[in-house]
Amino acid sequence: MNKQPVIVLVAPGFEEVELVAPVDILRRLGIEVVLAGVSGLTVEGAHGICVRADMLLVDVEPEKYCGVILPGGQAAWTLRDTPAALALVREMHSAEKLVAAICAAPIVLEAAGVLSGRRVTSYPAPGVRDELTSVKCISEEQAVTDGHIITGRGPGAALDFGFALGAYLGCESRIAALKEEMCYPYTAG
Amino acid sequence: MNKQPVIVLVAPGFEEVELVAPVDILRRLGIEVVLAGVSGLTVEGAHGICVRADMLLVDVEPEKYCGVILPGGQAAWTLRDTPAALALVREMHSAEKLVAAICAAPIVLEAAGVLSGRRVTSYPAPGVRDELTSVKCISEEQAVTDGHIITGRGPGAALDFGFALGAYLGCESRIAALKEEMCYPYTAG
Repeated sequence: MNKQPVIVLVAPGFEEVELVAPVDILRRLGIEVVLAGVSGLTVEGAHGICVRADMLLVDVEPEKYCGVILPGGQAAWTLRDTPAALALVREMHSAEKLVAAICAAPIVLEAAGVLSGRRVTSYPAPGVRDELTSVKCISEEQAVTDGHIITGRGPGAALDFGFALGAYLGCESRIAALKEEMCYPYTAG
Repeated sequence: MNKQPVIVLVAPGFEEVELVAPVDILRRLGIEVVLAGVSGLTVEGAHGICVRADMLLVDVEPEKYCGVILPGGQAAWTLRDTPAALALVREMHSAEKLVAAICAAPIVLEAAGVLSGRRVTSYPAPGVRDELTSVKCISEEQAVTDGHIITGRGPGAALDFGFALGAYLGCESRIAALKEEMCYPYTAG
């Protein structure tokens, strides 16, 4: 199993469920997760829930992490306009490490130029979909894995997205048992 | 629609998804939600995510709220052993206001003596189920509403639990649209 931690980018207005569900799932699987605040260590989500980040984005050394995860919400537009976030996404992509985004956050991957020819999903709104101009196709599935690029549809797909991340990071054989442990009987489609 | 806020009790070791999903859903529906920390304003969850509470449990005036919601995780045992939490649950129950708990947290409702003759669900482990001695029956559904008592099964049922809370608090007609907005195609069963 992969031994490096995963970095999660936390910007103001992040969708709380889209942050918490993947982090919860990955930590249950024994994968280390580090929350990196984009503009501060205490960050308020889209629905007023404040979480504390472990470090700041400016202090992230990309070579120490096995991938990057981007929750959605208004945070996606902030991340898209943050050069350090785009640089981190590009660096992970160049190293063929995990690059994951859910809901509106695939627009950040598009802005970083890493979605060319990929099959992805995203939040199904024109304001998001219209930006995904370089992708091969947009799926209506809850979560889509295409190589090292994993995308999720929205807050209601956050657990599906988390399970896809865990499977990609070497824990596929444990996902069925984890879904049972977490009382999640649903199959993403 | 109900105009009073709902209180959510936040104790160390709370299941992050079980806190965040219901709060997110209720706030999307325009229902005010207040997070009350049991032993402090910054509280660390079961998987290391720290959230900031809005106030302390000792400062809660029950008559100003329309109900109380208890996330599960290790926090459930702390809440069960906190007299002020049990008193708040009893006061809400006496006023026939919403009393809700998910995962392990129904043990707090049992300790408060408010589950007698009720149909509930809970996390399906003996350490939880064995404590629910006064209930009428335990369902294997994701979320169960019996009068003003609403219970949920576990983290994978947190969205279902949230939708059940929203429906109970006067927003039933908006749940289908909200599930679509949140990309949640699943039906609790």
